[in-house]
Amino acid sequence: MNFHTRKWIKPEDLNPNGTLFGGRLLEWIDEEAALYAIIQLENSRTVTKYMSEINFRSSAKEGDIIEIGIKPTKFGNSSLTLACEVRNKMTREVIITVDSIIMVSLGDDGKPVAHGKTEIEYVKNRLQDK
Amino acid sequence: MNFHTRKWIKPEDLNPNGTLFGGRLLEWIDEEAALYAIIQLENSRTVTKYMSEINFRSSAKEGDIIEIGIKPTKFGNSSLTLACEVRNKMTREVIITVDSIIMVSLGDDGKPVAHGKTEIEYVKNRLQDK
Amino acid sequence: MNFHTRKWIKPEDLNPNGTLFGGRLLEWIDEEAALYAIIQLENSRTVTKYMSEINFRSSAKEGDIIEIGIKPTKFGNSSLTLACEVRNKMTREVIITVDSIIMVSLGDDGKPVAHGKTEIEYVKNRLQDK
Amino acid sequence: MNFHTRKWIKPEDLNPNGTLFGGRLLEWIDEEAALYAIIQLENSRTVTKYMSEINFRSSAKEGDIIEIGIKPTKFGNSSLTLACEVRNKMTREVIITVDSIIMVSLGDDGKPVAHGKTEIEYVKNRLQDK
Amino acid sequence: MNFHTRKWIKPEDLNPNGTLFGGRLLEWIDEEAALYAIIQLENSRTVTKYMSEINFRSSAKEGDIIEIGIKPTKFGNSSLTLACEVRNKMTREVIITVDSIIMVSLGDDGKPVAHGKTEIEYVKNRLQDK
Amino acid sequence: MNFHTRKWIKPEDLNPNGTLFGGRLLEWIDEEAALYAIIQLENSRTVTKYMSEINFRSSAKEGDIIEIGIKPTKFGNSSLTLACEVRNKMTREVIITVDSIIMVSLGDDGKPVAHGKTEIEYVKNRLQDK
Repeated sequence: MNFHTRKWIKPEDLNPNGTLFGGRLLEWIDEEAALYAIIQLENSRTVTKYMSEINFRSSAKEGDIIEIGIKPTKFGNSSLTLACEVRNKMTREVIITVDSIIMVSLGDDGKPVAHGKTEIEYVKNRLQDK
Repeated sequence: MNFHTRKWIKPEDLNPNGTLFGGRLLEWIDEEAALYAIIQLENSRTVTKYMSEINFRSSAKEGDIIEIGIKPTKFGNSSLTLACEVRNKMTREVIITVDSIIMVSLGDDGKPVAHGKTEIEYVKNRLQDK
Repeated sequence: MNFHTRKWIKPEDLNPNGTLFGGRLLEWIDEEAALYAIIQLENSRTVTKYMSEINFRSSAKEGDIIEIGIKPTKFGNSSLTLACEVRNKMTREVIITVDSIIMVSLGDDGKPVAHGKTEIEYVKNRLQDK
Repeated sequence: MNFHTRKWIKPEDLNPNGTLFGGRLLEWIDEEAALYAIIQLENSRTVTKYMSEINFRSSAKEGDIIEIGIKPTKFGNSSLTLACEVRNKMTREVIITVDSIIMVSLGDDGKPVAHGKTEIEYVKNRLQDK
Repeated sequence: MNFHTRKWIKPEDLNPNGTLFGGRLLEWIDEEAALYAIIQLENSRTVTKYMSEINFRSSAKEGDIIEIGIKPTKFGNSSLTLACEVRNKMTREVIITVDSIIMVSLGDDGKPVAHGKTEIEYVKNRLQDK
Repeated sequence: MNFHTRKWIKPEDLNPNGTLFGGRLLEWIDEEAALYAIIQLENSRTVTKYMSEINFRSSAKEGDIIEIGIKPTKFGNSSLTLACEVRNKMTREVIITVDSIIMVSLGDDGKPVAHGKTEIEYVKNRLQDK
């Protein structure tokens, strides 16, 4: 799993208990999954269709740095399935895992469309191929 | 299921496809679940522990009004399990359902604590009893 | 008066005194009034025209839950007048009242347009009538 | 009336009709009144107590620049009354006026406290007097 | 240098150290420079092209009021160069200075376009001339 | 240079011209620099002291994905100097570069303190050494 995006827990990310607000974390995960899928499928009209169960295993507090990891697990016809793990950057303690996030590629009509991808591609390779 | 909180989809809630950003919706659901649990358990130190799988059944667009419904399904010792449904206010079309959101009541030490509740209570009754 | 939308006071909603920032509360009231009027008038081009005087009777602090109540008081030709009360969900203490918020229904040209409504309608009835 | 703070209407400030969201404008006015009162009363524990009726005379659209003017109208014992006008910076068209915003100076106990001011003071004079 | 816009440091503007988040301050400066240039050049398609080095000389804490000053230093053909200083409103202590912010006026095609201005103009004079 | 954090340009990140708001980009850069420095120096009290000149070489539009790269260039006694480049993820076009961002490590008294680091460390190695 590759960990890219990092977040610094700021006051606006806390719930009134002083720990990371779960809803904010879900927002970050959904955005990271969308980013990953858009880059892989080369289609900015890619949306979240399904998210498997979510376990909040630990929390984070103000000033902590977390990192969000995404790994593709299945390339479907119009879909891409991802796994996600969020962990504390400094201690590597796992905060949350989501086994399966299904992203779907849409056409201009808003309906699922085949994306034609079957494996991970790296942007640098795409650019070299041109 | 009681539908309380309503949201008006504003530009800042959209993804670049011009539909409701899924992460924003998850943030709203988590907040509504927390609100509901805090009111029922009379403990503001109540946090999200688990969320079952999430199906994005339809979306919403700018200017739409949605409403978020919550129903308690199980009172545990230190937990409260909720079901959630989000729908379009004007058409009643379902946008998302979550079968099970487990909220846990914490003590001052941050550990789960028995909440002593076994059924839904209404704030007006609590106030009348005083 | 029906109390629908609930808000959980989070760090980003506080003024530097550590109490609920009045401007944030006014923002929430205006949004709730707009939501209510749009649903009743079935016209999303409904805007705030007037707000009567506002008394900040008490405040709220981080972690408090408040609820916002709206009641229609007059159906005009192109307008709908609402009353609003915000109170603490747990204690029912009143935070703010606004006697009169006038919402106006606009046509595609941005000018007031008759909305044809004379009484409260419930969405469920509208849907049953179809 | 002195016009200080200027705002640039950005996408996140719009309602779904594409005009300036009224609630955002009320938020800005309340913040500007608080700023003004805190500077004049030299007490950061100054809160909004009352706002007189508000007429939305015109609106603003994305990309417009507005300016917010504040004028003190009465120095009370623990209060300061302000008038406010918001206008379009480029056309000087008035967007909103509020005749009377009453700000109250609080002591450490959160109760109103005499502020000892009777007229406008300029920070540069205060600094020169030291 | 004229100091217009004032900001009240709120919880959402702090970094986890409890002082003003530098990134927020840079955001405010950029917005103020854009506002100033748009007003002077009478072209809302004015963007930031260059910012000279930035020294964070002091910080600010929650509840502080800061003011942002802008001064034009050079009118180019399609550009306007500004200087900026941010200071604490109550103590006049300087927080940050930026010697040179270059704003460029764009045409409908997104390319630099001559703005025809050579000196500061006041909106009130423009309006009187009409 | 390692590119970690990615951002998806959403409506709330645009200026009224419909391109990425420069102030938002500066906010993201400052946050990324702070994150990087905190991780390297193992001190969460690390603040931005200086940023060298900034050239906005190209922009980005709604739906674009950008990535922010950071590279350490000098370990001082209490400081860490970083270089930053932001580019479009899909085209690798450079949006902005900042040659030198100086971060300073502070002690509990808010004064610069020696951080004792002389080279890049990886968190995984730190954790293995324990």
